[in-house]
Parts: sequence; C-alpha cells; structure tokens
Amino acid sequence: MHSNREILERLPKNDEYMSGLVTGFSMGEGCFALCKRKGKDKIYLSAEFRISLKKEDKFILYKIRNFLKCGRIYFSNKAVTFAVTKLIDLVEVIIPYFDNYPMINVKKNDFEKFKIICYKMWKGEGKTKEGLERILSVRELLNNGGYNRSLIMEEEYFGLL
Amino acid sequence: MHSNREILERLPKNDEYMSGLVTGFSMGEGCFALCKRKGKDKIYLSAEFRISLKKEDKFILYKIRNFLKCGRIYFSNKAVTFAVTKLIDLVEVIIPYFDNYPMINVKKNDFEKFKIICYKMWKGEGKTKEGLERILSVRELLNNGGYNRSLIMEEEYFGLL
Repeated sequence: MHSNREILERLPKNDEYMSGLVTGFSMGEGCFALCKRKGKDKIYLSAEFRISLKKEDKFILYKIRNFLKCGRIYFSNKAVTFAVTKLIDLVEVIIPYFDNYPMINVKKNDFEKFKIICYKMWKGEGKTKEGLERILSVRELLNNGGYNRSLIMEEEYFGLL
Repeated sequence: MHSNREILERLPKNDEYMSGLVTGFSMGEGCFALCKRKGKDKIYLSAEFRISLKKEDKFILYKIRNFLKCGRIYFSNKAVTFAVTKLIDLVEVIIPYFDNYPMINVKKNDFEKFKIICYKMWKGEGKTKEGLERILSVRELLNNGGYNRSLIMEEEYFGLL
C-alpha cells in the first residue's frame, strides 16, 4: 500500500533548544514499542512511540505534542500517555526527528531497531507470513526483549487487546 | 564564609541543542536532594544534584559531566551516578544553568526549592540553629517530602551515612 509513496519529512521548525529538550526527555522517559494483536484469522502489528508520566505532569506532554504536531494524549487511572501510533507519523516525523536529533544513551539502540520495524511495515512487509516473521524477529531485540511487558502496558493504557 | 563572595556563572559554552538535551534528560532522570548527616555534636547538610542510571548507560553521564565541567561520576554495584555536591559548583553552575535552560515539568518545583536551600547554605545560614531549621523546613517540601528515601539512596551510593 505504501511501498511507492514518498516519505515526507514533517519536522518541527528549527528550535535547537526545544529539540534537545524533547530528545533528552525521550532518552529518559520515551519508549519505542511494537504491539501485536491477534485477530480472528491474522495478526495485526502496530508500532508506537510513547511517553507515559504521572497525571500531574501532563503539561510537558502537551508541549511535546504541540511541538511534534502528531500523536495523541491518553489518560488512564494514574497515568497520562503521549503516543504516536500512525505509521505515517512515525515514518515522516518521529524517525526523521530522532535521526536529526539523536539520542545519545542506550535507548538509541531501541530506536535503530524500531526504525527497521517501521520501514518494513511501511513497505508492506507485514502482509506476508515471511515478512511478519522478519518484523517479529527484530521486535524480540527491542526493549531488551521485554515485549510482553509492553503488551501488558498497552492493555492497561488503551484496553485494546 | 561565603556570604560576601560574588557568584560567578560558569555556564557551558552556548550550545542550544546540548543544553536542551541536558535539561530534558534531567527532567526525567535528575534529582535535587539535601542530605543530612548527624555528626558527634552537630548536623551536617550537603546539597546535591545527581543523575543515577544503570551502568551500561554511563556514557551519557560522562557527556553531561564534560559539558557542565563539574561534578563526579560514582559507581556502585548496578548503578552509575553523576553527582554535583560542591556548594560552589551548585551555586555557580547548576543553578544558573537550570535558570537559563529551565525544566518545564513538575521537577522545576523541586529545583526552585533546591535553589532556596543552596542560597541559604551559601549565605552561611546553616551555621545557626534557626537557619538550619529554616533550611530543613524547605527540605521537607523537596521531592514530595521523600527525603528519607533520598537518604537511603545516598547511603547505597556513597556509604556516607
């Protein structure tokens, strides 16, 4: 579906300080995840970049949301989450953003794997059994293999699974 | 001792991106604390700004140390900690730094209280019983009043208490 589509870079306006701030904060609090849902006869994948905080800290998430101009803010019992889940936003904003303003801690390793996953999904690889398996094999390396934990978090926040 | 001394601002060279990155990362991972030690006949206070991470993430702490040009890196069993404990470094670097590159999340409230504490200590208020009590009353508002937790962390990292 997307395979021949050009990737536009919808990056925020040049603001070096705010860019550093968003990268620095994401280095500590951000999470790149690939969520797997089982449908009736197939598996659905959805990649996401998210930051979850205690509710009283929602202001910073609105700032980040307004800066990146994509993603949504969700509330659960105690937490507030900023999540970018649309593949087009991940490919056109989040990935070019962290390429331009790179993380300089261990989370950059997760970002590199996340990038591979998103590009594979963008090219439509998730639609074949072999492609899906290749994507899931990269996912096993994400967040120290803690994808089950991510699924549980996902369930908590969005009640999707 | 310090009361008549001028405060020099020893701020890092102008690098907006790195400044944003250090502030953003500190918003997530940084901690402002005031540690209390009981000596034989008096109470000793030491203020500190610290960032504690898992050992594999030590690289970012060296980057921050080199950028701010103050503080030290400590290792414990599983963690690595960057800590600025010298009052002169807190007053001349850390406080002007976060005044110039402000945190925009709830941690800014801790910073404001930490600043009051450091200035009071800088003016020598900690040397009188009344001044000490005033400083400790501000400390009770720091980190949601979780100063006992800070003390336990301190003990773990530095074996000081």
